[in-house]
Order: sequence, then C-alpha cells, then structure tokens
Amino acid sequence: MTWVEGAEGGPFGVHHLPYGIFSTAKDPTPRVGTRIGDQVLDLRKLASGTFFLPWIRPAFQEHSLGPFMAMGPPAWRLVRLQLVELLSDLRYRDQSETLLTPAAKARMHLPFEVADYVDFYASEYHATMMGRLLRPGAEPLLPNWKRLPVGYHGRAGTVVGSGTPILRPSGQRKEPDGEITYGPSRRLDIEAEVGFVVGVASDQGSPVSVDDFAEHVFGAVLVNDWSARDLQAWEGQPLGPFLAKSFATSIGQWVTPLEALAEARVAAPVQDPEPLGYLREKDRYGFDLSMSVSWNGTEVSKPPFKEMYWTPAQMLAHMTANGASLRTGDLFASGTVSGPVREQRGSFMELSAGGTEPIDLGDGRERTFLEDGDTVRIGATAPGPDGTVVGLAEVTGKVEGRP
Amino acid sequence: MTWVEGAEGGPFGVHHLPYGIFSTAKDPTPRVGTRIGDQVLDLRKLASGTFFLPWIRPAFQEHSLGPFMAMGPPAWRLVRLQLVELLSDLRYRDQSETLLTPAAKARMHLPFEVADYVDFYASEYHATMMGRLLRPGAEPLLPNWKRLPVGYHGRAGTVVGSGTPILRPSGQRKEPDGEITYGPSRRLDIEAEVGFVVGVASDQGSPVSVDDFAEHVFGAVLVNDWSARDLQAWEGQPLGPFLAKSFATSIGQWVTPLEALAEARVAAPVQDPEPLGYLREKDRYGFDLSMSVSWNGTEVSKPPFKEMYWTPAQMLAHMTANGASLRTGDLFASGTVSGPVREQRGSFMELSAGGTEPIDLGDGRERTFLEDGDTVRIGATAPGPDGTVVGLAEVTGKVEGRP
Repeated sequence: MTWVEGAEGGPFGVHHLPYGIFSTAKDPTPRVGTRIGDQVLDLRKLASGTFFLPWIRPAFQEHSLGPFMAMGPPAWRLVRLQLVELLSDLRYRDQSETLLTPAAKARMHLPFEVADYVDFYASEYHATMMGRLLRPGAEPLLPNWKRLPVGYHGRAGTVVGSGTPILRPSGQRKEPDGEITYGPSRRLDIEAEVGFVVGVASDQGSPVSVDDFAEHVFGAVLVNDWSARDLQAWEGQPLGPFLAKSFATSIGQWVTPLEALAEARVAAPVQDPEPLGYLREKDRYGFDLSMSVSWNGTEVSKPPFKEMYWTPAQMLAHMTANGASLRTGDLFASGTVSGPVREQRGSFMELSAGGTEPIDLGDGRERTFLEDGDTVRIGATAPGPDGTVVGLAEVTGKVEGRP
Repeated sequence: MTWVEGAEGGPFGVHHLPYGIFSTAKDPTPRVGTRIGDQVLDLRKLASGTFFLPWIRPAFQEHSLGPFMAMGPPAWRLVRLQLVELLSDLRYRDQSETLLTPAAKARMHLPFEVADYVDFYASEYHATMMGRLLRPGAEPLLPNWKRLPVGYHGRAGTVVGSGTPILRPSGQRKEPDGEITYGPSRRLDIEAEVGFVVGVASDQGSPVSVDDFAEHVFGAVLVNDWSARDLQAWEGQPLGPFLAKSFATSIGQWVTPLEALAEARVAAPVQDPEPLGYLREKDRYGFDLSMSVSWNGTEVSKPPFKEMYWTPAQMLAHMTANGASLRTGDLFASGTVSGPVREQRGSFMELSAGGTEPIDLGDGRERTFLEDGDTVRIGATAPGPDGTVVGLAEVTGKVEGRP
C-alpha cells in the first residue's frame, strides 16, 4: 500500500518502481527518478539528503542510470527496499510536493547510454513464419536455430526513447522488374520485442554463466525494432541486416527492474534437442509478459513473451560464450515476439503474411505496412504480487515522411 | 625537416603526426600525444600553456581523442600546422626533455572510445575468394555486392588496442560427422583491414553525402578483425557473423590523420555497373596503402588497399543513407583487404584456400589457421610528400590458449 494517490492497483504501483531519467521545465537537469502511479519520485533529491547509504548516493547525482546499474544486485535490492518503505510510510506523505513531480510534466530522456546493442531471433513462431515468407518451399528453420539463440549486433547510436518520431528511412530496393532503386522504404515494419539491460559488466575472456543472469541484468524495457523489409530483402545476404534496422530502434523510457518481474517468472518451453551445456539452466524460466501492439489506436496483436524458445538467460550466456565482455548499458533484445496464432504475431510482415493479407484497423482502414503519420504503441503487462499488475512502460513512435 | 633526431625519413616523420593516448610510469594519467620518430610529444603539456588557441586547449586535457576529433577539420588543420611548426623550429629543441617521452617508455591506451563499430566487405578479391570457398559451385559474388558496400555491425565493446593478447574464443562448431560441439575455435583467423574513425557527428535523419567524407572522418587505423571461421560457418545464417567476430577486434594505437594521407590518394577502381547517385563521387579516390601481414615474424602477405572496390567515402555515405546518425568515435572498417594474387590475400582462410593449402612460415613451419602462441603483425605504409613514407601504426596480437 502506498500513500501516493491513484498508484494502487495501476501499472506503476509500489510493486513496480521502474527507473528513468527525467527533467522538468523548472529544473532542466536530467536526473534519476522512479515512477509511482502518475507521479515521478525524484531520487536525486532523496540522495542529496541522508536517505540512501553514502556509497549509493553518488549514483543518483548522474544524468544516466549507468552508475546505479553498475553497482549490482546488492545496491539494486537496497534502494528498492528503501523506496518501497518511503512510498508506504505515511510520514513521508507531507513531503510529497517536494519529492513528486506529475509524470505529465516530466520530460523523459534516454534512461542509459546504450553500449552495445544485440538483437536476437528467439521466438520459434516468428522465425518459422519469417522462414516461410522469405524462403518459401524450404525448411523454415535453419539447422542452427534450435542449437543456439541466433543474434546479431545492431546500431547502438540510433536507439531512441519512446515518443521519438521515426523518419521513414531510404535505401536500396529491388523493384519487381529487377531494377535497383534508392528511395523511401515501402515496406516499413515494426518488431515488438523485449529488451534486457546489462548493469554489471564482465571481463573479456570470461563467459557469463547461464545461471548468472540476475547477477548482471538490471532490468527490462519494451523495444520496437523498426524494420524496412524491402531494404532488408536486398541487402541482407551474406552478412545480415544492416541499414534495414539501423535507422532507429525505440525503447521504453522506464526500465523495469528484474525484481519487479519476480512473480512473472514462468517455466520456459521445453527444448528439443537439449541445448549444449553452457545453455542449460539449473532453473529454466521465462517471463509471462502479455504484450499488446496497437496501430493508430487499434490493437492488432497480443504477442505472448512466455512462449519464447530461448530465454534471456540463454541469450546472455550465448552472447558471452566466446569470451566477449559485457559493459554497463549493453542492451540485448529478444527479437520479434510472436505466438502460435495470427493475433499473436509481433510484426506486420507476419500479420499481413508478407504484405498479402491486409490488416483491418477498423473504420474501414486497412494496412499492410506503415504509412506516414501512423503511430504504433507497444505495451505489456506482467503479473505482480498479490494480484497486482506490472505495466511495462509503453514504447510508441509516429512515422514521419521526408519533407 | 624536424629537429627530433632520427624522425626524418622514418614512418613517423613530421609529415605524419598520428594521435594517440599515452601515459608514463611517472605520470599515469592517460593524455593526448603525437608520435614523432621514436618519441611522443605531449599535447596536454603544450595545452597547459598558451601554445594552442584557447578554444582548442580543453580537448587536450582529456583521456580520449574524442573531444579533439569532435572539433572538426578547422581544429584538426590548425593543430597540425602548429605541431609541424613546433617540430620544425629549432628554438623548441631546448624543450625537448619536457615535451618528449621515448615511445618505448609510453604506455598506450585505446585512442578513443569506440561508439559503433561497422565492418564492411569492400574488397572484390576477398568477397570473390570467400564466395568460392563458402558457396562452391555458385556465383561467388551475390547480386547485391556490386550495387552497395555490404556491411554489418560488430561489437564496439571488444575493440582493443594493438598488443592486447587475444584469447582463443570458444563457441559452437559443427563437426565433420554433423555433431554440434562447444569448444575452442580450431579455425582462428585474421582479417587485415583498414579502419576509419569518425570525428564529426551527424544528425539522425540526415544522410552524409559521399562527397563529405573529409568533413566527418578524422583518420585511419589498421584493424585486425580476428575471426573464428568454424563458429562463423555454423552460426552465420541468416543474420550474419556474431560470436565468430565479437570476441576481439584489434586496432592500431595511433590514429593517422586524413591529412597525412593526402599524398596517398589514388584513383579507385572503375565501378561497373555505375552505382546509384548517393554512392557516386565527384572526386573518386582510394588510398594507396601497402599493407603487410607477418605471422610469427615471417611476412606472408602484402594486401594492396588501393584495389578496394568500394571507397571509404562510399562506405560512409552508405552507412548513413537510411538516416542513421554518426557519433564521434564511430569506427568503420573496410573488411579484409585482398589483392588479385595469392601473396596479397588478407586472411589465412584465403591464403590457405580454406585450410587446404598450408602456408610456409619458413624454418619448415607450416600453418593453416592460428595456433596458441602465434603472433600476427599487420603494418602499412603510404606515400608521403617529397618521397617520404607514412607508416601506419602496426596492429599486433598474440593468441593465447585457455588455461
């Protein structure tokens, strides 16, 4: 129970407490806050007093979550306990005017500097559907798919926060007559994903155990991995997606700490064949996030994250299995989340069967790929303790054409 | 002519002046220096006085080249002119003990924080040879290869400086009998490349013109893109190389400014078909860098950088053609530099024809791929003004096995 009005029972109750970087018109310095109901609690203000332990306070004087994320699980747990206490203890209610800012008045900034960005391809339903669309007649899953979580590096410098307008990218496209042209993408798509943010770094040469996921990963954000399918089809071989993805990737502005997802842990799908040792978990679990994709306000899909074949812990272990180091701020995303039925597909490529089956947005409007002016919103909820709901911060973006 | 003894006529004459970050036992603070002969000139020391213009000085109080690189061509030109003057003017000779440190006593640090790392595949000879080895019987070049510079994102966090030991990576490999195992790579290879370092950032949504290369790119470094071919063969489809490359990428410790390569400009190969407009240069040029690859001290290859089909300016224009932004510290590399004949191949995969033709290292030693304890050195020289030679800083690495 929190004394913050309206927070109880909502997506940002005291059981959630995601972290973000905000500023206000009055005080334009970006600083760390936590979201409670429709308010933002100013952690820099708390850290300027004696509220946090002295060794923790400097982390909240920063313009990024990086320093706090780097501190690791003991600091994360401690701060969370203190915040729950503060927000539950009626004696703090008197300070609400000093400590709280309405979320509507907070300007949000990218919560952390993205170090390396890796994108996986971990949904069996997505990979199968894409395989069918891109390689008709062939086995939809390539031989390596069930042996390792396939992934690749994306562009960290073009990760943007929810709400940032998405400029339609241009690039090379192969026309139906075989001609190669350069121009705005005609098959601009989304990928509804879940991203995980590394807090604790690791050394080059030291793979991270699949069982040490929670020792390194600070939290989760929703991701929209905008994709230009026409660019991708032409450029993608043999080295994978490049310009088709690198123009923009949107993430939610509030990072949900892993601890807030404790109740959302569910058994992950059984894997056959059994993976190699370094991918075998003592305690194998996924997260029961019920996602929602809305297109111009109409919900078009409900991707189920719990169906992911490869778990975030396996992604992390694989990503470092060759000795690659982790840095604070590394972001790795799941790849498109799709479920077994049409209404659960996490990309428009899949929802429209490669552009052949238009999607009904209601009001007689139909779409295959994105048009200028379209807005996409991705949201997700997860079960919290005692029947509460954790609502991950939405990721939205409006497509803008070129002038 | 410089008063620094022994510098004249060598690879680090006053016509070169590459920038790096160094420290010494006496003063362990990493700081900016320029290399002259076998000495390092301390730019922080110069900046602490009145030598540079006031607006430039702060850049040399930093632990990275980033702030100086971000200043752009006017600052780069000005500083270079001043350094040439200082190193040519005999009146400064008296201060040599204060200003110079023997390179042998300087500890080198990574010269800049790598923002995004992109690797291209721009040598026609390399792409053709790899195509023949990996897809025997098929057209060696894929249809997109002559239409755009194929590239992908690598891992920025594992870029290391020359001299850093390279730990043999482990990963999944497909055995001859089809079994999938995890273990140390058995086909560890190099890729001899040239990398370009972005100084001046660009905005998201604003492609950089192919003619604006020199407005954004600060300089060049040699690159060894270590590659585990067995991991690559198994993981690489459909999303491209991932763990096969992400364990380590070595770069030279001194960044050669573009201005030092002015005399090395040469006409680049004529392209057929003519590329699309955004890739068409008003003044098309490559760089005449004569590279050298040594394996345990024996030179095994001399890749010619001037033969690259795609120029660095085309790589930069393509990388941003979709509106992707540039950040100071972005590194983009050429991909393996290979020439038309065997002795010019820039990877051991090519030199050994996929591991079938051992390479003679002399003394009766033969190799196909790297063994533990092996050292690889990549060097390059370019023509400087008046018959001088610009010697790019070498990139070396010794392979270490796992304990």
